[in-house]
Amino acid sequence: MAQVNGNYLKLKAGYLFPEIARRVKAFSEANPEAQIIRLGIGDVTEPLPEACRTAMKGAIDEMGTREGFHGYGPEQGYLWLREKIAASDFQARGCQVSAEEIFVSDGSKCDSSNILDILGEGNRIAVTDPVYPVYVDSNVMAGRTGDADDAGRYGGLTYLPITAANGFTAEIPTEKVDLIYLCFPNNPTGAVATKAQLQAWVDYARANDALILFDAAYEAFIQDPELPHSIYEIEGARECAIEFRSFSKNAGFTGTRCALTVVPRGLMGTAANGERVELWALWNRRQCTKFNGVSYIVQRGAEAVYSVEGQAQVQALVAFYMQNAAIIRRELTAAGIQVYGGEQAPYVWLKTPENMDSWGFFDHLLGKAHVVGTPGSGFGAAGEGYFRLSAFNSRENVQEAMGRIRAL
Amino acid sequence: MAQVNGNYLKLKAGYLFPEIARRVKAFSEANPEAQIIRLGIGDVTEPLPEACRTAMKGAIDEMGTREGFHGYGPEQGYLWLREKIAASDFQARGCQVSAEEIFVSDGSKCDSSNILDILGEGNRIAVTDPVYPVYVDSNVMAGRTGDADDAGRYGGLTYLPITAANGFTAEIPTEKVDLIYLCFPNNPTGAVATKAQLQAWVDYARANDALILFDAAYEAFIQDPELPHSIYEIEGARECAIEFRSFSKNAGFTGTRCALTVVPRGLMGTAANGERVELWALWNRRQCTKFNGVSYIVQRGAEAVYSVEGQAQVQALVAFYMQNAAIIRRELTAAGIQVYGGEQAPYVWLKTPENMDSWGFFDHLLGKAHVVGTPGSGFGAAGEGYFRLSAFNSRENVQEAMGRIRAL
Repeated sequence: MAQVNGNYLKLKAGYLFPEIARRVKAFSEANPEAQIIRLGIGDVTEPLPEACRTAMKGAIDEMGTREGFHGYGPEQGYLWLREKIAASDFQARGCQVSAEEIFVSDGSKCDSSNILDILGEGNRIAVTDPVYPVYVDSNVMAGRTGDADDAGRYGGLTYLPITAANGFTAEIPTEKVDLIYLCFPNNPTGAVATKAQLQAWVDYARANDALILFDAAYEAFIQDPELPHSIYEIEGARECAIEFRSFSKNAGFTGTRCALTVVPRGLMGTAANGERVELWALWNRRQCTKFNGVSYIVQRGAEAVYSVEGQAQVQALVAFYMQNAAIIRRELTAAGIQVYGGEQAPYVWLKTPENMDSWGFFDHLLGKAHVVGTPGSGFGAAGEGYFRLSAFNSRENVQEAMGRIRAL
Repeated sequence: MAQVNGNYLKLKAGYLFPEIARRVKAFSEANPEAQIIRLGIGDVTEPLPEACRTAMKGAIDEMGTREGFHGYGPEQGYLWLREKIAASDFQARGCQVSAEEIFVSDGSKCDSSNILDILGEGNRIAVTDPVYPVYVDSNVMAGRTGDADDAGRYGGLTYLPITAANGFTAEIPTEKVDLIYLCFPNNPTGAVATKAQLQAWVDYARANDALILFDAAYEAFIQDPELPHSIYEIEGARECAIEFRSFSKNAGFTGTRCALTVVPRGLMGTAANGERVELWALWNRRQCTKFNGVSYIVQRGAEAVYSVEGQAQVQALVAFYMQNAAIIRRELTAAGIQVYGGEQAPYVWLKTPENMDSWGFFDHLLGKAHVVGTPGSGFGAAGEGYFRLSAFNSRENVQEAMGRIRAL
């Protein structure tokens, strides 16, 4: 009988969001009259920008003619898109990132898990706690961890607690690690890192020959002009970091699907035989062999994000969600709840009242206010006693949800 | 320094198609006046069906409203699409495949390489020779092979020659293997398997507890009503086979991106500790963790393939390309070249004249007729002395290319 990858058997029962969906479904079936408001999963709700829609329709018209038809595109993405990304997202902020270093993909979730394909089995891996579950689960599935303990911590991983005490940006590890996952603005805590904080990480990585996997999926939500949007704003980052970006949250592409990964030329790793190998070449080979590029139609939609109209429409979307975040912060604070995040990120991270545990507060909020959030413990053991609310919803729903919470 | 996956260093210099692109570019730069006709890579050329374009535009309009907006969809694909696929592609042909067993994805290339994520390292793997290079390269990258020999054969793999002598359908192996990659209609030879031939494979797999990975990306091109389109038309296949399908070639989605994989419920594998594990559950977990579903817009386009208009438009596309294949077969035969395939598949597989080797014939054809094909040796050692021509092009280009070849 064909042998399976037994590492999957180490995974804890369910990915966080399916478990939330299961509880919501059960509640909803038992209480069909309840008007549930979902501030749980970080999914956008507002219409796709008009510039993107117009561009995609134009692409579809092209595909209806023999001259304008596009078959297989470059696995790395079309150059016209990669050049706009390089210029607008990176070079305009002083980052030395070229179009060649940008790999367009169908999602940051895919890229941040697929990146393990090109990395070896001997790396010591550090993740923050709490953390976006995909970083951990993809390592478990790839056999880079031991078994989980009762708190859900996997053997072999280095967990870096992010707490109120360290401003939710994690301490630099005292031991040597080889791979570090960082996400700023942070999912789930909504924290953000300063240039000085990121410089400390880059300095650590260079001193320890470590690789930083930097997830910047929420960079568009940064409001403070002094804060870095990209790891490549930090001196030396090209020698030690890969960055993930997405159109999901800024342009509302969660259902349209487009993202990108930056792998700098000259960024090196080491094979088990000691040979130095360029990661760009490995990722390029991986994408050419195991991926066929993003839909031409979708890439034209992503390109429109960089038009004058597209930029204005994306900024309006971001501003809308950030106003929601401000309302959530204000109302929860007025209700006597301690809140974090939500100022440079679309997530508000709150301390559960009366020392409730995270799932207890989830059930309480669902049962009493019919509001769905995300239990902090679902993101890691150090998230216990915390809870995430997302600013992705209509103004009306956010205000209604906050009214219900204040009434509790 | 971060350790890389050293298995990538075992890969031969280039994936086949980039090497072709390199030679064509060099020739084109040296001969800017040459009108090159590309019958190499299997990429479609004709416009996207109108039914698909109309449906995608409708989906874009929906995305422009708050009520019709679609964010994250199910990682497995929308049920309305999975149900149509199950009914039309499988149940209508007597296959017991349910919507739940269908996983919609962005490409068969992705799925047929990602499937290794859920399979163990101890499997003995069989591939045909010649073979679609992705099956081999993805195994090399995942560390399931040894090094390559001078002929390009990797240690640890079982190669099953497909030749004129066995009708290009491969002999059942005499040794025990655990995983078998089969592709019918075949890429690159254009051969097709009968029900009796597939039954022999299924019987072998069941007797040997082996898993068949069946690639049916070209099933729409089958003309003979007696031939099976799906492995699940074969008794017992649900217990031993996973099937890959694509919208790339039937509906011209190579640049639009949609495909699917069928994993039957109850299909089992074994973990190293002897535990029996359902492959459906592993693939479902893999997709939920490492993939975020296909663009809503694209899924609406794929759904339109199953409408009355969509079916008529897809059948017209298939008929058009198959007429090209018939022209290629007829003209090459008249030129004294031995041809295979091209009757139930969009590929014609030819014996190179005068015992030229495959790359020699490639250079000859490019240099003298300005026609690009694919060297058989690029698909495996047993493909040496063969050459693939694709029927994917305009009528005018196919006729012009054949005229030039006859004139040689």
